[in-house]
Amino acid sequence: MTSSPSHDLPDPRLPDLDAIREAAAMIEGQVVRTPLLAAPKLSQLVGTDVFVKYENMQVTNSFKDRGALVRMLRLTEEERAQGVIAMSAGNHAQAVAYHASRLGIPATIVMPETTPFVKVQSTQSRGAKVVLKGETLADSQIECERLKAEHGYTLIHPYDDPDVIRGQGTIGLEMLEDEPDLDTLVVPIGGGGLISGISIATKALKPDISIVGAEAALYPSMWGILRGETPICGGNTLAEGIAVKNIGELTSMVVRALVDDVLLVDEPSLERAVNAYLMLQKTMAEGAGAAGLAAVMMAPERFAGRKVGLVLCGGNIDARILASIMVRELARTERIVAIRVVIHDRPGVLAELAAVIGRLSGNILEVSHHRLLLNVPAKGTSVDFTIETRDAAHAAEIVAGIEALGFSVTRLDVAESHF
Amino acid sequence: MTSSPSHDLPDPRLPDLDAIREAAAMIEGQVVRTPLLAAPKLSQLVGTDVFVKYENMQVTNSFKDRGALVRMLRLTEEERAQGVIAMSAGNHAQAVAYHASRLGIPATIVMPETTPFVKVQSTQSRGAKVVLKGETLADSQIECERLKAEHGYTLIHPYDDPDVIRGQGTIGLEMLEDEPDLDTLVVPIGGGGLISGISIATKALKPDISIVGAEAALYPSMWGILRGETPICGGNTLAEGIAVKNIGELTSMVVRALVDDVLLVDEPSLERAVNAYLMLQKTMAEGAGAAGLAAVMMAPERFAGRKVGLVLCGGNIDARILASIMVRELARTERIVAIRVVIHDRPGVLAELAAVIGRLSGNILEVSHHRLLLNVPAKGTSVDFTIETRDAAHAAEIVAGIEALGFSVTRLDVAESHF
Repeated sequence: MTSSPSHDLPDPRLPDLDAIREAAAMIEGQVVRTPLLAAPKLSQLVGTDVFVKYENMQVTNSFKDRGALVRMLRLTEEERAQGVIAMSAGNHAQAVAYHASRLGIPATIVMPETTPFVKVQSTQSRGAKVVLKGETLADSQIECERLKAEHGYTLIHPYDDPDVIRGQGTIGLEMLEDEPDLDTLVVPIGGGGLISGISIATKALKPDISIVGAEAALYPSMWGILRGETPICGGNTLAEGIAVKNIGELTSMVVRALVDDVLLVDEPSLERAVNAYLMLQKTMAEGAGAAGLAAVMMAPERFAGRKVGLVLCGGNIDARILASIMVRELARTERIVAIRVVIHDRPGVLAELAAVIGRLSGNILEVSHHRLLLNVPAKGTSVDFTIETRDAAHAAEIVAGIEALGFSVTRLDVAESHF
Repeated sequence: MTSSPSHDLPDPRLPDLDAIREAAAMIEGQVVRTPLLAAPKLSQLVGTDVFVKYENMQVTNSFKDRGALVRMLRLTEEERAQGVIAMSAGNHAQAVAYHASRLGIPATIVMPETTPFVKVQSTQSRGAKVVLKGETLADSQIECERLKAEHGYTLIHPYDDPDVIRGQGTIGLEMLEDEPDLDTLVVPIGGGGLISGISIATKALKPDISIVGAEAALYPSMWGILRGETPICGGNTLAEGIAVKNIGELTSMVVRALVDDVLLVDEPSLERAVNAYLMLQKTMAEGAGAAGLAAVMMAPERFAGRKVGLVLCGGNIDARILASIMVRELARTERIVAIRVVIHDRPGVLAELAAVIGRLSGNILEVSHHRLLLNVPAKGTSVDFTIETRDAAHAAEIVAGIEALGFSVTRLDVAESHF
């Protein structure tokens, strides 16, 4: 799995360092020169020196701006006039729509029929024509090919394209320009365009740098390719931006040649990484954007003593999902706890319970009685409290306080219906 | 209210442009050179050209790092050895604790006894000694003075100090360095240190620049000073970082001389601004940090055609409050709606309702029956649904769909108890 320090490229179509430098010059002033900043709180969390590249600060809030722009800047006048097409319900759609509109190129985006309205709308608001077609991505793909053939559109591929790869590679140039001492980069892998460009750029500049990919465990496509396996992909991942079954041909060659390792991240780690970016780093990462941090959080010993650059590659996450992640993290750390207390159904008991919780500085968020449950005595009832506490020790103190009054207390899961 | 373009300073103790430049040199490499970036989505929201200065990317996630560091770098060897003291439960406490620890200066922070544990803990974790004393800030103030006198500590004032003011002023230098065309700056006002430093620096460099302060409407202290009034301050504001009753002597002189206007922002606008920073700009602002954006959102016509720099001065906000703001915004925009449907209590009705909601692509988040309510017929019952929708039009479509089956539907407030 360890790459050779050489940076010979496995295919003549692939861009080299000079091509990536040329791409950087092409897009200068048209994409955001995003900051790379030390992240002391994340460093403390994972026990190693961590820097964050804020690609969520791009105009469409993901790195996709770079590759899509480079590709479109390479169109001939005739191709520009004919227009471009892309198939994506995510960040690539936004990037193509935005830069096509800026450049005056007609853009058509094909999305599955099940795409949430907000994504359709935000793509349309950037001036692109959206075609909703197909139940699945495979169906949409057929429509995309059909429209491309019918109208002579140029396809802007999300990853398996030399211009797209070198556009994403400009991120690597900027990271080493800002922090030449980085010795490890952790890069999310979907189709592989981002890690391919970054690997080519940074291994050419610094052959000893270690490049680690982070892939969602539910979609371990590249991980499988490196191992010669065909893994099972599927399931509902928070990191839908990197839930890719079909890795690119070019990108898999680059990863095989230049990437040192691919780590798989599970869903709880993705959630915790999104939460850590938000609460510690004050920035919003989508699941895919947080995959690199999730990988470091899952295997901190693997990165001990390194100077790690994380590519926070995208920040487009639904408000309800983000709120849910935050509340679940509060529940996980017992800063929100739910308890059920079995009581005799007589006046004054609720007041007694509320008083002891209040005296112990618990903040009651929700109360509900359940008189009809089968697992409480016929003459009893039960009351559920959702309580905000300072931490797990404080939660235990409150439970003990209630038990000291002679009540039986059961811990409940904080209902996920609370978002 | 319009200031003269002159930059004569109203008091000889105040730092001038050169003093602020000197402060910038002093702190270089010890605080983050935060980015200033164009914010196209916010610009679209408020209809003017908006740039954001990300002071929430400082190590302690607020601008307070700058002033506190400058003040401590000016201590004599003897003063350093004696130690420093500050009174704050907020960002100033974090900044003093962090930089004192870096510089090897013993630090004591006095906080009211009611300070949340998490704030105490995070200040202690930065190496400061925390003294919890007093029910109110005024009581804590007395303890702070007592400890200062007893131990010979140097007080690090949060705002009314020439060194603190010039530290905060370095933000103004950086903003004009990065974007010399800014013609308007909107700066939150608590005690006034931030806006004082920024005003002195930027009006000296660019006399025509317009400086607008943003103050919480519940704490309109500076607004009152400018009008010769003594306003009533009080209440529970989201912007607790700028909830200051006693403006500084130096800072009020600067504001009188150099600030063009002070705008008051109400609580709903603060909430919406926090949400806009998060959802559109992918960054976390505390209430005080979002006050400048809130001011522009409340009076967009006042800023039309300008090139506005917003100082996002802090990002320390409680997870539960942030989650609540996000969900309330979803409710406000009807992407989460709650409805009550009165039904006959017979088998199959719930299935019928769930079917129509599902057919119309509403996502049911929560269901509850209420059999004991007095306002439903004795033989009826009611069922409440909390539903996720695409937008207000979609919500109306779902309600109409249920009514078309002959049910009576009432809209409910989305329960705030969900946080």
